[in-house]
Amino acid sequence: MKKIVFDFEHTLVSQSDIEKISEKLTPEIENIKKQQTLKYKTDYASLYVPFDPELLNIVEAIIKKKKKLDPYVLIVIGIGGSNLGTIAIHKALQGDFYNEKKDAMKVYFADTVDSDYLENIVQIIEGYLISGKNILINVVTKSGTTTETIVNFEIFFELIRRYRPDNYSDYIVVTTDKDSKLWDYAGQNAMDRLEVPKKVGGRFSVFTPVGLFPLGVLGINLKNLLDGAKSIIKDCTTEDIFSNPAVLSASVIFYHYKKGANIHDLFVFSKYLRSFGQWYRQLVGESVGKKFNKEGDLVEVGVTPTVSVGTVDLHSVAQLYLGGPQDKFTTFVTVQPKNEIYLPKIDVFNTFVENIQGKSVSFIMNSIFGGVKAAYENDGRPFVSVDLPAVDEYFMGQLLQLKMLEIMYLGYLLNVNPFDQPQVELYKKETRKLLSK
Amino acid sequence: MKKIVFDFEHTLVSQSDIEKISEKLTPEIENIKKQQTLKYKTDYASLYVPFDPELLNIVEAIIKKKKKLDPYVLIVIGIGGSNLGTIAIHKALQGDFYNEKKDAMKVYFADTVDSDYLENIVQIIEGYLISGKNILINVVTKSGTTTETIVNFEIFFELIRRYRPDNYSDYIVVTTDKDSKLWDYAGQNAMDRLEVPKKVGGRFSVFTPVGLFPLGVLGINLKNLLDGAKSIIKDCTTEDIFSNPAVLSASVIFYHYKKGANIHDLFVFSKYLRSFGQWYRQLVGESVGKKFNKEGDLVEVGVTPTVSVGTVDLHSVAQLYLGGPQDKFTTFVTVQPKNEIYLPKIDVFNTFVENIQGKSVSFIMNSIFGGVKAAYENDGRPFVSVDLPAVDEYFMGQLLQLKMLEIMYLGYLLNVNPFDQPQVELYKKETRKLLSK
Repeated sequence: MKKIVFDFEHTLVSQSDIEKISEKLTPEIENIKKQQTLKYKTDYASLYVPFDPELLNIVEAIIKKKKKLDPYVLIVIGIGGSNLGTIAIHKALQGDFYNEKKDAMKVYFADTVDSDYLENIVQIIEGYLISGKNILINVVTKSGTTTETIVNFEIFFELIRRYRPDNYSDYIVVTTDKDSKLWDYAGQNAMDRLEVPKKVGGRFSVFTPVGLFPLGVLGINLKNLLDGAKSIIKDCTTEDIFSNPAVLSASVIFYHYKKGANIHDLFVFSKYLRSFGQWYRQLVGESVGKKFNKEGDLVEVGVTPTVSVGTVDLHSVAQLYLGGPQDKFTTFVTVQPKNEIYLPKIDVFNTFVENIQGKSVSFIMNSIFGGVKAAYENDGRPFVSVDLPAVDEYFMGQLLQLKMLEIMYLGYLLNVNPFDQPQVELYKKETRKLLSK
Repeated sequence: MKKIVFDFEHTLVSQSDIEKISEKLTPEIENIKKQQTLKYKTDYASLYVPFDPELLNIVEAIIKKKKKLDPYVLIVIGIGGSNLGTIAIHKALQGDFYNEKKDAMKVYFADTVDSDYLENIVQIIEGYLISGKNILINVVTKSGTTTETIVNFEIFFELIRRYRPDNYSDYIVVTTDKDSKLWDYAGQNAMDRLEVPKKVGGRFSVFTPVGLFPLGVLGINLKNLLDGAKSIIKDCTTEDIFSNPAVLSASVIFYHYKKGANIHDLFVFSKYLRSFGQWYRQLVGESVGKKFNKEGDLVEVGVTPTVSVGTVDLHSVAQLYLGGPQDKFTTFVTVQPKNEIYLPKIDVFNTFVENIQGKSVSFIMNSIFGGVKAAYENDGRPFVSVDLPAVDEYFMGQLLQLKMLEIMYLGYLLNVNPFDQPQVELYKKETRKLLSK
């Protein structure tokens, strides 16, 4: 059976150091296993999500109901943890040109309060409504109080109410906490509702209805996605640390951070994994970028996540990565592509670049990636690599779940709470003052 | 007259420190002015580009000629410095949904050797060719030997030759160095050619035919773009350092880098400036990420550029930025949007978020940005900000030209050569070995 392949052989950590660090995680491995039995009652609630038999049933029932409206386009209104996971999986599996496919339901993401972007989307959607096509709006906000999401909701609410005055509520599905005002409002106005389990934070919520509903609407196989997530949780909670990819990954990031690598570069060699990088960036940034440790001491710790895309960024930041300061640790992610393309054999092109005639595009990609790995190794630049045997629901489920566990372990090693984000309140407080003027 | 507004008041640099650093740049300001008189003979050749009267004429003549073919879609084949500037300006001015506009020429960018991405584009383009529409291919590679670009060129060359066997050369425009083999090949095969001035490196080439041809084809006003670039060069070569935004910007980045901020975050509060950020990332990464200084000593210096997009990334990395290590210096970029949207007044929505009913989306955006600035200031996180009075050709020309000058000054302060990128050869050498197997 195909499996994700990990390579932990190119770091600067010795076998004994990695053992020492990983051993520190033993109590946390124990703890996580215990937490799982508590289902939704704990901060680790996200780990129960893929095992919840009810959740998928509820989501699929609403998808079935909404499909009857024959929606031509889905609009996902949400920001941060409310859309990054959805976009990550949608882009990885359906690509950048999905909306150009004739037979597929289109999708748009309304996130921030950028007038020009919003104007563009509203015009497109209004065009569909005028031409008689149906739309489906999924509003996603855990708290129900996210400013940007409420702004976008209000604008699309007005739009759908104008064009479908008799049954506009049918076209709206609200995903939010059960005790939010938005939950109540949706119920009072006959809109379908999906619950985000209370203890599951936004950045850990991709396998809840937050991600499942829009992904299911777009035709993603949700069962396979959840099966992938479930399967890797076992690997990532084994006490045999050298078989535990989440523990190893957290340990090497931690080691290099302590040695001065304050930047962790996720370098994906697949254009369609860029959004997975953006999802991971939030996961790292919010979970382990902390002013205070668990005891409340001022620590100001945090690895800064960056996302690079091969081979594009070899022509952008490779000079820095191979020549600049030793301030980075890199995780490469490669995939086996779905398509294979062979170059023709045209002799004259051989005078521009040698040894590519008649070869496959993925052979060329792999050769460049191999060249990059060799250059990193030759220059003592530490990295790990992760190779997906296929880009499908199952392995994307594994990949995202693995990263969520890695970050929990990294939070433990850094002695910070990976589940809160108190500092964001600093700008929100100032924003409220300005809005009230 | 409208002008870009700079704010240098929120850094950690004292007036006297900034004077000391900026004064170090006096000889370089002098030098740059002298280099400009040498036109294309110097490493600073990019600064002559906007003033070259011939260049725009040549580009516009070829655009006129190619428009006669009535192309339905433009395919830009290039990577790194060969497409990042084009994408930056195209996205800023024409947005993410440009290809959905009914009346506009479509555009696709073929850059890397990702089979899945490439397969998607090829299918779309083949569909157009089958339905009788014309395409225009612009191959951009300064050296004429960029592996990815030659791969992509070969694939689209085969495609156009198959569907337009009699006159396929008419649909190809090659942009490259005059002494490259590709230049000769294009000439021998009756393809139109555009020259990249020899001394202008990829990351400084946006105002050469590299950027001008595709942008002109897409309807961008090239004259205004170049006028913007020209106008800011004067401001950025004045010896009155406190009126010189490039000198001030380089000086503050340098100061904070020396104090431990190894990360420079370009935080744009406009979705359509994300690609400008990607362009700037290459400019920083390749120009000042260096293993050796000008004297050849091993130094391993370099600021790591990151790109954040507001307000999206407030829901992703703001926790890290406001809580994590003091290892960042931030440049905020804001714009005045083209469109204005007002929220309706729906009382019930006031229970979700207060004080937004009936207000404009840009007022809300500005309030969030104001909240972020206040939070950074309250927490002693240093930043500068740049506000564009409009997103148009003129101000985008100013912005990109300003940043190119900033980076030349930053290279001078770091005592590195901002015009070379020797370390990229490390992976290319290894790649060639693997390709020959």
